[in-house]
Amino acid sequence: MTERLVLHEYAASGNCYKVRLTAALLGLELERREYDIMKGETRTPEFLAKVNANGRIPVLQVGDRSIPESNAACHFLADESALIPQDAFAHADMLRWMFWEQYNHEPNIATLRFWMGWVGVDKLSEAQRLQLPFKRQAGEDALKLMDEHLAERDWFVGDAVSLADVCLFAYTHVAGDAAFDLPTYPHLSAWLERLQALPRFIPLGA
Amino acid sequence: MTERLVLHEYAASGNCYKVRLTAALLGLELERREYDIMKGETRTPEFLAKVNANGRIPVLQVGDRSIPESNAACHFLADESALIPQDAFAHADMLRWMFWEQYNHEPNIATLRFWMGWVGVDKLSEAQRLQLPFKRQAGEDALKLMDEHLAERDWFVGDAVSLADVCLFAYTHVAGDAAFDLPTYPHLSAWLERLQALPRFIPLGA
Repeated sequence: MTERLVLHEYAASGNCYKVRLTAALLGLELERREYDIMKGETRTPEFLAKVNANGRIPVLQVGDRSIPESNAACHFLADESALIPQDAFAHADMLRWMFWEQYNHEPNIATLRFWMGWVGVDKLSEAQRLQLPFKRQAGEDALKLMDEHLAERDWFVGDAVSLADVCLFAYTHVAGDAAFDLPTYPHLSAWLERLQALPRFIPLGA
Repeated sequence: MTERLVLHEYAASGNCYKVRLTAALLGLELERREYDIMKGETRTPEFLAKVNANGRIPVLQVGDRSIPESNAACHFLADESALIPQDAFAHADMLRWMFWEQYNHEPNIATLRFWMGWVGVDKLSEAQRLQLPFKRQAGEDALKLMDEHLAERDWFVGDAVSLADVCLFAYTHVAGDAAFDLPTYPHLSAWLERLQALPRFIPLGA
């Protein structure tokens, strides 16, 4: 990477951590710029005009261009690295888990973590409160699917760590913040340990 | 493609149509196998064991292997074609729109279409009914973001059609089924026409 890389982020977000973790595993340097989402700092006119019209973090700035969406930012950083399989089927299979993460995992596990740890359950709207049991069940279903997939394999795709693992790790390893009981998923727990043992691994709080 | 391609699908689903449209634009042959999601045919023990443990369509079968997740299946089919830009930034930017589609567009526009056209608004649960105004607003926000992005460009990424356009087209062009007023988005409407004019384009009902 010859262009300057700046991560526009809220550090406690698992989606932002994905991008930092990908960079760390690849030995890439990132500048970091923090926005307080609880104070609406990603919805200001300036942020919407200059960083992301969608009003969300993370955004990876590459020189004077930007990539919103955490999993897309990870894909840019990992281009031509061992974190993206070269075979077309394996590449698509990796993306399959990354799309699944954004559709079936993040809206349940990350949203519950945010509602419980940031918003506060007593501050939820009626519409949100009624979704709690559905998100709880969908989150358990997601963890169960991952656990079963990992029963006979070390990594999500093929026999090596890929972005699928990195992107799924981000919110899975903090699912306890949303009162999911990770030790009840033994294969998932072993995979979390394998990922944390990778060279150059960094924790969420780093 | 030398391996047999079978699309496990529910034909009226925009997610399944994406895969058919990608194949058509590339001149690839797909066998099609229909499942009635309204009768639970994707949640049978056999489907969960043999097609997709996540209980969803589409699934693209490639020989004896399978790829769930519509956007990942499109990526497999389009590998090394002009529908995927070769430049690393443009590739990630394309994926950015495809992740955005699954997170910000599909759960609002496709879900409202399904609730209004298949489930029936009078059959919604209280939890679903309370989400209607939020999904309506988020759907309008998604269409507005697309319209603004297209104000000064013909395609979502670079200057040529890519999977970002194909995947976003699928549920956008039927947003009227969910009572979104597409003609109020002029740039988006022009883009829909551009996409429908592509050689080998096929409609949803084909």
